Amino acid sequence: MRPHSSSHKQNKSLSVYLLNTLMEPDKVLERINGLFATDLLPQNPNSFEETKLFLQQVAEILIDYIKEEYDAKSKVLEFHHPSEMAQIVDLSIPDKPMELTQLLQSCRDVLKLCVRTGHPRFFNQLSCGLDLVCMAGEWLTATCNTNMFTYEIAPVFTLMEKEVIRRMIELIGWPEGEGDAIFSPGGALANVYAISAARHHHFPRVKRFGMSSVPTLCAFVSADAHYSTKRAASILGIGTDNCFSIITDNAGQMIPEALEQKIVECKGEGLYPFFVCATAGTTVYGAWDPFHKIADICNRHKVWMHVDAAWGGGLLLSPEHRHKLAGIERAQSITWSPHKLMGALLQCSAIFIRYEGLLLQANQQSAHYLFQKDKPYDCSYDTGDKAIQCGRHNDIFKLWLMWRSKGMEGYRRQVNRLMQLASYFTQRIKNTEGYEMVIAQPEFLNICFWYVPPSLRHLDPKEKAAGLDKIAPKIKLKMMERGTTMVGYQPDPHSNRPNFFRMIISNQAITETDLDFLIDEIIQIGKDM
Amino acid sequence: MRPHSSSHKQNKSLSVYLLNTLMEPDKVLERINGLFATDLLPQNPNSFEETKLFLQQVAEILIDYIKEEYDAKSKVLEFHHPSEMAQIVDLSIPDKPMELTQLLQSCRDVLKLCVRTGHPRFFNQLSCGLDLVCMAGEWLTATCNTNMFTYEIAPVFTLMEKEVIRRMIELIGWPEGEGDAIFSPGGALANVYAISAARHHHFPRVKRFGMSSVPTLCAFVSADAHYSTKRAASILGIGTDNCFSIITDNAGQMIPEALEQKIVECKGEGLYPFFVCATAGTTVYGAWDPFHKIADICNRHKVWMHVDAAWGGGLLLSPEHRHKLAGIERAQSITWSPHKLMGALLQCSAIFIRYEGLLLQANQQSAHYLFQKDKPYDCSYDTGDKAIQCGRHNDIFKLWLMWRSKGMEGYRRQVNRLMQLASYFTQRIKNTEGYEMVIAQPEFLNICFWYVPPSLRHLDPKEKAAGLDKIAPKIKLKMMERGTTMVGYQPDPHSNRPNFFRMIISNQAITETDLDFLIDEIIQIGKDM
Repeated sequence: MRPHSSSHKQNKSLSVYLLNTLMEPDKVLERINGLFATDLLPQNPNSFEETKLFLQQVAEILIDYIKEEYDAKSKVLEFHHPSEMAQIVDLSIPDKPMELTQLLQSCRDVLKLCVRTGHPRFFNQLSCGLDLVCMAGEWLTATCNTNMFTYEIAPVFTLMEKEVIRRMIELIGWPEGEGDAIFSPGGALANVYAISAARHHHFPRVKRFGMSSVPTLCAFVSADAHYSTKRAASILGIGTDNCFSIITDNAGQMIPEALEQKIVECKGEGLYPFFVCATAGTTVYGAWDPFHKIADICNRHKVWMHVDAAWGGGLLLSPEHRHKLAGIERAQSITWSPHKLMGALLQCSAIFIRYEGLLLQANQQSAHYLFQKDKPYDCSYDTGDKAIQCGRHNDIFKLWLMWRSKGMEGYRRQVNRLMQLASYFTQRIKNTEGYEMVIAQPEFLNICFWYVPPSLRHLDPKEKAAGLDKIAPKIKLKMMERGTTMVGYQPDPHSNRPNFFRMIISNQAITETDLDFLIDEIIQIGKDM
Repeated sequence: MRPHSSSHKQNKSLSVYLLNTLMEPDKVLERINGLFATDLLPQNPNSFEETKLFLQQVAEILIDYIKEEYDAKSKVLEFHHPSEMAQIVDLSIPDKPMELTQLLQSCRDVLKLCVRTGHPRFFNQLSCGLDLVCMAGEWLTATCNTNMFTYEIAPVFTLMEKEVIRRMIELIGWPEGEGDAIFSPGGALANVYAISAARHHHFPRVKRFGMSSVPTLCAFVSADAHYSTKRAASILGIGTDNCFSIITDNAGQMIPEALEQKIVECKGEGLYPFFVCATAGTTVYGAWDPFHKIADICNRHKVWMHVDAAWGGGLLLSPEHRHKLAGIERAQSITWSPHKLMGALLQCSAIFIRYEGLLLQANQQSAHYLFQKDKPYDCSYDTGDKAIQCGRHNDIFKLWLMWRSKGMEGYRRQVNRLMQLASYFTQRIKNTEGYEMVIAQPEFLNICFWYVPPSLRHLDPKEKAAGLDKIAPKIKLKMMERGTTMVGYQPDPHSNRPNFFRMIISNQAITETDLDFLIDEIIQIGKDM
């Protein structure tokens, strides 16, 4: 170990840090060589230096991964079929403990085979990207390892959740003092929360007596909405056949007249319409349902209006673009997932309910071991009895820290820049030979398009469609094999559209060069198909 | 910056590491001073060194927290009432971005106010402790930031989940080739999965037509079971009143004769019994329901048997103690949360279903944008359509890495050691003046006891009980104010027991000294009450 300047002794933490890292590289590893987890804290109380070296090594491995991930020239993935993958990497649980150095190697081996979801050329999902401040927040969350169910063990995080929720409700536009919310494990469960709250609002007796004690309930959602509303209807005992799909126009927006007609029809058949789910930013087309018209219909028929803004909610951060969500403030509940457009790490979703107290009434079980009323603090701060879960992961700190790093201004710039990139990409697709738009004027960050290889360009529409349906999967496979980029594809069975690509621009790391790259890469791969 | 030995250039990563950290402490901070998140990757592509310094600083802050947390002499918490807490810490979201150094300070400020759930004297919940390898795994999980819904973007983690599930099913004891599972956000939702699967098994039509299309279903759970089964009954549209509480004996075990009687009674009233939830390790007493007898009853009445082993499942890792779960292998479904006894970070829970394919049938919605059948790989590896969620957090890597660090042998030792500590603590309570056991022979890691201050010792039973009911909350408040330790308390309304403490021994950091400390501390605090 080399000596180090004594002038820094005042800063103990940094001195110890330097002391460790001044060791020669081989010695760093030598010191944990042959050690096991039981040689570290807490089992060996005198092992702080070794524990530190181990965790620093983990951090170094992760920092190296990040460096590679953000290098546009690096691969997005190293594709292997499941059966091959099982041969390449040893996933077994051993009988004997493994050494720390073997665990570090396991980390490197696994990372090598991971899909780089933060890579600037990964366009495959609504949640892309890796915000490093958010990631730092999640590291801290892991280290704190607490549970959000009571103020008792999550005092700061409980208050933090309250404050972030307050700001998000402001952005939604509900009057001050209205609205309640809770973070939930993903948007699909947020939708379960919403339907369950709506049901409790209409028929509180369901909580005690079940669905067989009330009329047959029915719900409505656009044909282009996320599938989670139907799944929620199945879980909640409503039934997917009682969750009606309302047709959409060519751009993917729910047709309000069709909604009202269906509501009236259901009433006529003796069903009880109680819930409409509108979507802010549909999954495939990024469409915005006409919120004001839907709110009017819901008012007329006394039906709960929910907006699934899991994907689109982030646009509320942009004064320039938030008009697309006009009318969202008329909803009784809203799903908004910061792990999508806002770029938080998965998972980070919230459900907003307009009526204070309803979440608690719907879910409360008053477990005497957890939500005692004789606690030594104001128990109204305990959030656990509002939740469907019992233990609840801390999804707030990473969002809070990231939001602080950007401020309202930074988020505005970030979201506006993504919208600009989307219109750049749209123009490029429109102006590049061989590409066709699925929806001429995308309204959000989803740009859906076909690549038509020369061999298909002069076929009649029916033959062309049949041919096109096979092109996207073929290009996708090649992309994955080359490892250069990833973008999703799907057909649209409702409007008989063959497989097309859905480009998603939500990663703040994306530049115009990356978008140009995708356009060229697809041509390269597909031109001779 | 100091020069460093050139002999280590072969190891680039370590050289860069040393290069950074050889800088004098002030310079380390100087280099990121005045920078914002936008000055780091990915916005500034030439900022790798600064990005690295920032993340290393985050890691250092967390490592310092860990050092303090594992120091038994440090405080478990710094208690503040919610209104005070809101004054102490600034939780606002600013308009302008905050500097990196301010974000680091935010991390330090928040950590200072966190309850140290990994502290060896934090005995407050079933999930205590901070396994550092598991934590390292969660850091990596954050950095990978992927979604478990498809093999496409989580190839290694998907296979890893399969392998860990296979090992857990072996431990459960289901025959090879039987059983399916999925990791879910906590045990409460795992129970929702179980009831939903059982319902689909009995009445697949509920998925499409809802609960009003089938007879009134009813379920059974012990009076000492976790409240999540009742809450699940409410969510699923069964109704809490159709989820019957079965009385328990003095030790907290379900009385099987009472269960069978209730099933028969319900049938007589025209209800349709379909689900029994037995518990392996109840929340308060740590009791084991009589699984074989319950399985016999379920067989006789063709009712689904679920075992909620969220807490107790970890005991399957001990050949010496797993006999307490004898009969669990006869269940049709099992909840098991490695974030409890196995010490994984929150959240880590799995639901096991005996019948392959049932989870998929119950939850499948076949979204065409996500679960295409023309994907270029074997789509049976996609797990997303089995889930209630859509996006699903990666809860497997941290468990896998931790399990590797211990091996089967290490876990056996760890679990056996906790059981030994529990019997040490039980003996100490029995032999220490002023303490009384609630259940004479605890069967698990929950030890429930009263501390009776001298002032109450000679009162008649009724007065003593009334006095005791106020003692635990008072002692708890003092504990929290002193910040020395935390342990939960609750009354038992079913058996008219006044507030008692529930000691939980699940943190591997606990030593006999910590247990002795708790016993002395309670006496110190309570003796003059």
